[in-house]
Amino acid sequence: MRLYAVGQRSETVRRANLSAIVRELHVSGARSRSELVARTGLTRSAIRGLIGEFVDAGLASEVRATPLGGPGRPSPVVRPNPESAVVLAIDIAVDSLAVALVGLGGEVLDLVRVQRPRGHSSVDEIVGKLAELSGDLRAGSGNDSLIGIGVAVVGVVRRTDGLVSTAPNLGWRDVPLGSRFAGALNSVAPISIANDADLGALAEVRRGVAVGVEDVLYVHGEVGVGGGLIVNGRPLTGTAGFGGEVGHIPVNPDGIACQCGSVGCWETEVGEEALLRLAGHPPGGGWNEVEAVLEEASAGSAVALGAFDALARWLGIGLAGLVNVLNPRLVVLGGLFGRAHPFLIGALEAELDRRTLPGPRALIRIVPARLGVDAPLLGAAELAFEPLLADPASRLRPRGVRAELASA
Amino acid sequence: MRLYAVGQRSETVRRANLSAIVRELHVSGARSRSELVARTGLTRSAIRGLIGEFVDAGLASEVRATPLGGPGRPSPVVRPNPESAVVLAIDIAVDSLAVALVGLGGEVLDLVRVQRPRGHSSVDEIVGKLAELSGDLRAGSGNDSLIGIGVAVVGVVRRTDGLVSTAPNLGWRDVPLGSRFAGALNSVAPISIANDADLGALAEVRRGVAVGVEDVLYVHGEVGVGGGLIVNGRPLTGTAGFGGEVGHIPVNPDGIACQCGSVGCWETEVGEEALLRLAGHPPGGGWNEVEAVLEEASAGSAVALGAFDALARWLGIGLAGLVNVLNPRLVVLGGLFGRAHPFLIGALEAELDRRTLPGPRALIRIVPARLGVDAPLLGAAELAFEPLLADPASRLRPRGVRAELASA
Repeated sequence: MRLYAVGQRSETVRRANLSAIVRELHVSGARSRSELVARTGLTRSAIRGLIGEFVDAGLASEVRATPLGGPGRPSPVVRPNPESAVVLAIDIAVDSLAVALVGLGGEVLDLVRVQRPRGHSSVDEIVGKLAELSGDLRAGSGNDSLIGIGVAVVGVVRRTDGLVSTAPNLGWRDVPLGSRFAGALNSVAPISIANDADLGALAEVRRGVAVGVEDVLYVHGEVGVGGGLIVNGRPLTGTAGFGGEVGHIPVNPDGIACQCGSVGCWETEVGEEALLRLAGHPPGGGWNEVEAVLEEASAGSAVALGAFDALARWLGIGLAGLVNVLNPRLVVLGGLFGRAHPFLIGALEAELDRRTLPGPRALIRIVPARLGVDAPLLGAAELAFEPLLADPASRLRPRGVRAELASA
Repeated sequence: MRLYAVGQRSETVRRANLSAIVRELHVSGARSRSELVARTGLTRSAIRGLIGEFVDAGLASEVRATPLGGPGRPSPVVRPNPESAVVLAIDIAVDSLAVALVGLGGEVLDLVRVQRPRGHSSVDEIVGKLAELSGDLRAGSGNDSLIGIGVAVVGVVRRTDGLVSTAPNLGWRDVPLGSRFAGALNSVAPISIANDADLGALAEVRRGVAVGVEDVLYVHGEVGVGGGLIVNGRPLTGTAGFGGEVGHIPVNPDGIACQCGSVGCWETEVGEEALLRLAGHPPGGGWNEVEAVLEEASAGSAVALGAFDALARWLGIGLAGLVNVLNPRLVVLGGLFGRAHPFLIGALEAELDRRTLPGPRALIRIVPARLGVDAPLLGAAELAFEPLLADPASRLRPRGVRAELASA
């Protein structure tokens, strides 16, 4: 029900078909020609021709599958070549910094994560450290097929230019992170920056617990609470990429001050600090104290279990609104919420029963995330692959493609 | 960033191009060939051929534009023929029932709205009355080109089959409205049913205040509060069409009981009853009492203006969460909120300043809806046109199209 109409010329169609194939290969890792025919709806001969272009460009290889004793010739299997197109993924989290090199097909070629102390850090310090880590990684890999750089950051990000509007955990406000990285990373590859929870959602949909689900709500708890929304199979970014800031839904008008400047935001009731308060642990204790509460709950402590019950009720209040508005199929709990899933799920389901309309309520499942702490990093890699997946023709052209494309 | 890939065969492309043109004509009412070239990105000769098919099928006419004295020949103007494809639109509202015949291009050929007393009504009674009104309208028009029926209903609707999960204002629960209408309307035309606020949003985006805006949040106030979301230019329906139920976002944990069974839902704080309570008018007074409060506010009554101020603060609390999550460009206020816009906007903007993140806050405008009480009815017509707009080829085929399509 697209509201704007765009016609399709033949080169647009060729691009769309190349895109369909490379996307399929990138997400699946390997497909037989027959599977590609079935999954893309293209004809056998079209698939053969288009795959030939990828093979010529070095982006994919075709191997004859070993016969399994069935009738007929086995369909050749096409695999993406991870080294042929590599992205640099970067994650700026509350407690750590990470960089990875990820190849076409999603293979993680190298990954480094270093701890950082919580609290405010200067942009220079963080960008400098990440540039250093990235330089080491790239020097070690000997690979110069870098096609893009993706950055996940624990903050509110304008996607169009990588402006970090606000990142309270880092103490940042209006930081032009895109241009800062462009200067520091010594690369001409395009840089894309997005919110960490948005990218966690993308990673869970591409390679985690939500593969194949069209309407997903991902909610990530740590100091703050972030969200990533997948609607009709696409990330909901909003008009400038600010979408998904579920941590700042007002849920308690008589609540406490939020670091965003408002009062009673969802994250004030369900973030790490709320858990520590409820469980009688010292505020600002960070991940160590949160671990301690999780261990107490595992050991059966009534206080710790009661704290998770209380947290779950507020989690349910916020989720109920989102479920009523978005009607998702799957709710994925990440970070603290994923780890505490067994302690939360009972009271959470009960709260949703009370506060969600029966129609959308009947359709949702609530599951813990699968990719753990690396979800935003893997999502940043997916973000960096997006231009290639959307338009692989630009990558094929230098190798000498049909002349008609030159004028496109 | 579509997560699923679909390849494109030549008949798919032809369909997409026919769809692009008919959508453009339907929304704009008339376009010159040159405009169609510019808007769809298709070539001149492709446009000429495709328009020829519509003209042959009687769906459009081409007229030579009057020269304006400029150089060159004027580009022929293509207009949709309203009588060639007509839909029946139906609206089941709290206070009224309406039916309309709407032609291709959006022309309202006939429209009847009758008042109904507030409160519960049997399905038989409402469907019977609407079937009678529709029969009169269709008999009067003498037109039998009915291609679809669209129904807007003040309730939570599963779009896949038109099940009304709950409609508290009518007293309905789990009503298979689709099949009830199919039996009563004496038509084989397909029936689509959706929530009234979702359809109000669609109408405002197609023909109202939000034309051309890709990310829109429409919030409609009356007894209950409904919402319609447009994301990336498409209606957000959620996984089964239940999406957009903004009235049931929990905003006040210590609030009053909602008719949905929960407590402190947004509509308990901003619906008509809340306004009457705040303004010291009798509860259950309906539209007459609401009108009285609006008149008092217009006359400068401090009590009435204070009531709107208090309402606006709760309106801002709920809107802040939605703006943080969805990052829309435009917030459209419909129904009561649209009429009271001048009395609400000051306190509403102030509350948003307090509670919305700076990034998304800077981007939004808040405007009253333009289409008034008929917005859901006009949206229902758009819903009924959707199959034709998405695949006009099916409509062209009987008139003798290329043989290759017969096997598609």
